[in-house]
Amino acid sequence: MSGPDLDAKTQKPHDRLAARFEAKLEAVGALIRARMESRHAPRIPEVTAHLVGAGGKRLRPMLTLAAADLCGYRGTDDEKLAATVEFIHTATLLHDDVVDESRQRRGRATANLLWDNKSSILVGDYLFSRSFQLMVETGSLRVLDILANASATIAEGEVLQLTAARDLATTEEVYLQVVRGKTAALFSAATEVGGVIAGAPDAQTRALFDYGDALGIAFQIADDLLDFQGDASATGKNVGDDFRERKLTLPIIKAVAKADAEERAFWSRTIEKGVQEHGDLEHAIALMTSHGALDAARDDALAWAGRAVDALGALPDHPVRVMLADLADYVVSRIS
Amino acid sequence: MSGPDLDAKTQKPHDRLAARFEAKLEAVGALIRARMESRHAPRIPEVTAHLVGAGGKRLRPMLTLAAADLCGYRGTDDEKLAATVEFIHTATLLHDDVVDESRQRRGRATANLLWDNKSSILVGDYLFSRSFQLMVETGSLRVLDILANASATIAEGEVLQLTAARDLATTEEVYLQVVRGKTAALFSAATEVGGVIAGAPDAQTRALFDYGDALGIAFQIADDLLDFQGDASATGKNVGDDFRERKLTLPIIKAVAKADAEERAFWSRTIEKGVQEHGDLEHAIALMTSHGALDAARDDALAWAGRAVDALGALPDHPVRVMLADLADYVVSRIS
Repeated sequence: MSGPDLDAKTQKPHDRLAARFEAKLEAVGALIRARMESRHAPRIPEVTAHLVGAGGKRLRPMLTLAAADLCGYRGTDDEKLAATVEFIHTATLLHDDVVDESRQRRGRATANLLWDNKSSILVGDYLFSRSFQLMVETGSLRVLDILANASATIAEGEVLQLTAARDLATTEEVYLQVVRGKTAALFSAATEVGGVIAGAPDAQTRALFDYGDALGIAFQIADDLLDFQGDASATGKNVGDDFRERKLTLPIIKAVAKADAEERAFWSRTIEKGVQEHGDLEHAIALMTSHGALDAARDDALAWAGRAVDALGALPDHPVRVMLADLADYVVSRIS
Repeated sequence: MSGPDLDAKTQKPHDRLAARFEAKLEAVGALIRARMESRHAPRIPEVTAHLVGAGGKRLRPMLTLAAADLCGYRGTDDEKLAATVEFIHTATLLHDDVVDESRQRRGRATANLLWDNKSSILVGDYLFSRSFQLMVETGSLRVLDILANASATIAEGEVLQLTAARDLATTEEVYLQVVRGKTAALFSAATEVGGVIAGAPDAQTRALFDYGDALGIAFQIADDLLDFQGDASATGKNVGDDFRERKLTLPIIKAVAKADAEERAFWSRTIEKGVQEHGDLEHAIALMTSHGALDAARDDALAWAGRAVDALGALPDHPVRVMLADLADYVVSRIS
């Protein structure tokens, strides 16, 4: 077997995509830098550069580039849409960090901490309107429709999380809608618009939507699980962070559904009332384990990753399709 | 002279517009109520209804309806755009009140006070994305382009206000850009899209933009002046509110430009440092009066109102054109 093939087996799918789209990602970065400028308000590029410069994985723009490539696109509107998607993502991070009162993001102090909440709110609004200008430049009403709907799903999911976050009555259905808002809606819009811009047939754009949707949900459930089982050095988050922040994640929802009166009182105290004491995290993990809630959530994540791979079946046979399938497997490999 | 003519002379132009567009405004209200719904997140309509229900003057949606009517539009997309404009306006009010830490709006407690900052941020985001969906439904890329640009101007102006608000070096040029962001950009977009949807020729849509832009600037300068000369019972704001909030409004910028060293120290203490004592408001008014700053700002407002009326010259002879001209005169009648 030759070198490149070996590489393909050992490199993470994300890195293989980044290598394939290196030049396009460079162009996307240049577009982001150009569009975050402001002639009169230097605060805007300062705040934006702090976050964009912290080097997220650029997963969402890469999904757009990958989808467009997979459907045979040869122009440059995919770069505009990739920058659009990254701007929307950055805007939501700025607002999320204000809402969650976060102090750290990607290993650095958050903008709301370094500047203030006001700057984060208004620069977030600015990036959202810049993303809107970029997508209008593609001239595709269908693209605009998809991104408008994704934006509404994102914002509705955020409000829902705010109001349902600590309510033990939250169902898995509501959880799914929160996750679509938090993660999956932008993944699925990112992949779908890549296909649309390429002029792909409806069956393919639908498959791209389904892939992004399932990938995002698998990704988020895996993230929920890592909060109870993760290794901080590998995941960058500390075990128990979500629990301490009283987030009603999928394993807890599943454990609550099977809780007896005493267990319910425990969940009500730690999540609803936020009264936590030493040993509560361990007890929470024990309860979830005894009810098989962690295993059940893992099974759900694997099933969603499987659905993502299945959706790719409707798309052309292509090296990028292999990378996207591997990516779906990869996001759940951390928990299996 | 007959009754209706007498009415036309005595009724405020805003009320004449409201009477003319009564049925359409009803439809816009129904659209707003329908689109602010959320199946899972009742917080969204609660917060929105609090603000929309408080009964703003609906000036912006009325401008869209008036512009479309004036250019002969006979469809219903003007209602969608009017609702779009009102949603954008409501979203910016929600975010503004968080940024300004406001406690009152339209005589009622603000949403950030009644619920919390988080709800105001996220519901604002939701309304902005809903406005985006509504405008996509019109299927006009030109409308989308206009509203995307207006959104960017609004957000940039807000950031600029945040960073320049208390800086004595702020020029009238920067002031104008802040005002365009705060007020004029949405006025001019509201009128321009009305013309675009009616298929009006470029000269007319440009005139509609110019009218909205000049009207918004006149409106804002008049508002600045009323802070120093107004009558709280008529304006709903207390004399000196802006001064106490250390807002660098146009009369102050003009007075600072003519200040000697001692006066500069006064402005620096009261606005930049925010150290205010009893008698400062009266001294500020005396300084502005001695430099003719209040008169100069009034002249500017009247000139902008004049430009608004002049712009209407490029538009068809029409009863609505008369109302729009009267509206421009009316916004400055409070200060002249």
